[in-house]
Amino acid sequence: MLQTVQKEIAHFIEELQDEHVRTLFAKLPSGKMLRSKLILQIAQNEQAPKLAAVVELIHAASLLHDDVIDDADLRRGQPSLNALFGNKTAIMLGDILYSKAFFELSSFGSAIARTISYAVALLSLGELKDVELSKSFNADEASYFDMIYKKTASLIEASAKSAAILAGLESDRYALYGKNLGLAFQIVDDILDITQDAAKLGKPAFADFKEGKTTLPYIYLYQRLNTTDRERLLGLFKKDLTDEEKAWLQEKFIATGALEAAKEKARALGHEALECLHKSDEKLRAIMHALIERTY
Amino acid sequence: MLQTVQKEIAHFIEELQDEHVRTLFAKLPSGKMLRSKLILQIAQNEQAPKLAAVVELIHAASLLHDDVIDDADLRRGQPSLNALFGNKTAIMLGDILYSKAFFELSSFGSAIARTISYAVALLSLGELKDVELSKSFNADEASYFDMIYKKTASLIEASAKSAAILAGLESDRYALYGKNLGLAFQIVDDILDITQDAAKLGKPAFADFKEGKTTLPYIYLYQRLNTTDRERLLGLFKKDLTDEEKAWLQEKFIATGALEAAKEKARALGHEALECLHKSDEKLRAIMHALIERTY
Repeated sequence: MLQTVQKEIAHFIEELQDEHVRTLFAKLPSGKMLRSKLILQIAQNEQAPKLAAVVELIHAASLLHDDVIDDADLRRGQPSLNALFGNKTAIMLGDILYSKAFFELSSFGSAIARTISYAVALLSLGELKDVELSKSFNADEASYFDMIYKKTASLIEASAKSAAILAGLESDRYALYGKNLGLAFQIVDDILDITQDAAKLGKPAFADFKEGKTTLPYIYLYQRLNTTDRERLLGLFKKDLTDEEKAWLQEKFIATGALEAAKEKARALGHEALECLHKSDEKLRAIMHALIERTY
Repeated sequence: MLQTVQKEIAHFIEELQDEHVRTLFAKLPSGKMLRSKLILQIAQNEQAPKLAAVVELIHAASLLHDDVIDDADLRRGQPSLNALFGNKTAIMLGDILYSKAFFELSSFGSAIARTISYAVALLSLGELKDVELSKSFNADEASYFDMIYKKTASLIEASAKSAAILAGLESDRYALYGKNLGLAFQIVDDILDITQDAAKLGKPAFADFKEGKTTLPYIYLYQRLNTTDRERLLGLFKKDLTDEEKAWLQEKFIATGALEAAKEKARALGHEALECLHKSDEKLRAIMHALIERTY
């Protein structure tokens, strides 16, 4: 089913009539297409693949700019576009994909156009917030949740909501499913940065902390440490960690239960997401379960 | 009248509810608001200031990214946002302004939303084309015109067209006025880079050529030089010019008539723009005349 989305995307790129764009776009590694899966699942409608393609272009554009802003050399285990062709090319390709997506979005009704474009505004604000929070150790859970809602969950929420609008279903219900799924998704991603190896994720473990990103497990860890250990944790912020320091972090994550608490939070959000669904939404249930299982 | 647009823009920024964005936006120097002038002139409609504000946000976003891509330290005679706060901040603020603009655009009818968003896609493609053309000396007039149409004229064309749609006027006629005005505007800008001093424009003269931008006067100059002088011209491309080299360029621009030919082209486009207008469009006529007079 995702092939119909790929076909729409290819068509969008073709319509730009620019050889350079075609070449650059072909270099982007394709992702799991989570947003498309949700849209196609919620809206079994002939316009659904086009809506999904719009959202995928927006997502791709945001990742292009994200990688420039984070100085990321890798994306999905492959060299990022900014690493291959420089930041400027990545910025420009991002702008092209964003604007093509907005052009195509305008052929949908106003409710869908507003839903998606509002999410993109939140996404951009979330990126700025992420950079601000990364300047010093952030121990504030509410700021973390506000940031991941904007940066990650808002577009997933908007995808589910728009698909529901397209299909004439209860849009609030699916929006809430999408929002909780998005939050859980980001927390799982943040946990995997700690638990998984470089080989599996395409980037080294503890990379987030090195980049100044104090994700939920670190916030929970901070809350659970005594004063001496808190100081040690703060001292490791944004540093290249020695093997001994890595071992200390790993041990504290387990001993304090911080990592388990983050997993529990992701599961709880996943559960809330499931409660929004109808019994017949089996595949949406499966998407949620598959996500949560990634933490084990 | 432009105050109504400023008020809408301030309202948009306020709605983003982000202190950092508010602070950053306040640092952006305000421009001549050419696009707003056109819109307010064509559409004496209560929605016109909001449409103008959308276009101004898009224009501001494109300049933010443009300055990152061109490594520009100055904008309108003041330090650019990327010079003050770094490239990343400029990219993020640009994304925020783009997405807020697209969100607001979705409250207009589909015809207007499509017109503006299509122009933004062209604008982004124009930026990429500009960078490509700047890699080597471009002597091809058609490529130059294709690039400036996309990068500069398309949004001016779309502004005039959208305003006409809003006012129920003949949109094709005003679109053509806007397109020709936009092309003339860019050529005049390219001429001023050669004729005006750093003090007046806020950047040194011949800056375009140093950055690899072979604008229309350079293309005409190339066409009019003999083989020896062509080689000298090509040798100066992207170089820091000595006073002697500057004097040589200046003299050749006059002696060959290349500069005058570029002025003539801008005037001819201006004339074509005027032909699209009704007799009653006095202020639109005045906008065009004021523009052309800048070349003297």
